[in-house]
Order: sequence, then C-alpha cells, then structure tokens
Amino acid sequence: MKAKVYVNLKSGVLDPQGKAIQHSVELLGFSGISDVRQGKYFEIALEGSDVAQARESVDKIAREVLSNPIIEDYRVEIES
Amino acid sequence: MKAKVYVNLKSGVLDPQGKAIQHSVELLGFSGISDVRQGKYFEIALEGSDVAQARESVDKIAREVLSNPIIEDYRVEIES
Repeated sequence: MKAKVYVNLKSGVLDPQGKAIQHSVELLGFSGISDVRQGKYFEIALEGSDVAQARESVDKIAREVLSNPIIEDYRVEIES
Repeated sequence: MKAKVYVNLKSGVLDPQGKAIQHSVELLGFSGISDVRQGKYFEIALEGSDVAQARESVDKIAREVLSNPIIEDYRVEIES
C-alpha cells in the first residue's frame, strides 16, 4: 500500500523560500504569478492491506515526524 | 487561480533523506514501513482565468525552475 503526505505552511506563516522562488520566476520573465508557497511531499510504502490501520499509522507519522504542527498543516492520502 | 506542483525523485534515484526519515520512523516504533521518499510541493497563485494558458505557464515553471529534469519528475494540477 502507498500513502502520500503533503505538508504545507499554515496560511499566516511567512514563507521566504516561496517568496524567493516567486522573485526568481518573475526575473525569468514569467508574469501573472501572485504567490508561491513551498511545501513538502512524502511517499510512504507500507506493508499490509488494512487501509484504516494504514491511515491511522501514517497520520501519526505525519503529525509527529513529518510536520511541525505549530506552523504546518498536513494532508494524508492512502492509495490501496 | 491556483496551481499545485508536485516534484519527486525518479524511481531509480537514491533518496538519502527519505532513508533517514524511514530509519527515524522505525526507531520511533512504527513498523511495516517499507520505503519513504521525500519530494517537494508548491502552491502557485496565478492571476487570470485561462486554464490552458495557466497550465502551460506552470508546466514551464515546473520544468525550468522547480525541478531538475535529470533526476526528478513533476506533476502539475490546476484548480480553477
């Protein structure tokens, strides 16, 4: 089974890396970009076939290891 | 309009950061994790409402700025 975890900064949190990308993209001649925010993306391969258990386990990993809940939100998707 | 870009390492490419996460997760007592791979995730806010043009523009940004096509694949999603 495969799980995907998306971690992104909460909306009020400053994202200097995203701003730097936005600036670079504008310098390269792309226009009409009003905001860029960078997040993280994880693909986790799991043994077993219990979707509910996998979701619970990956949710815990996302909360405790992959994200900082003070400044980041996460989203978990399970592909069975 | 909003675009999401997912960048991940191609399947043959070593991912030491993913391996480190997998190791940490195992040390923390999570079992049944057979692989972890880390990627990047970008949210881009665009002006205008032409979906085809937005897709073309974001695809170009993803290819030229956000990913390294030699070792990474990318995927673009447009939310109108």
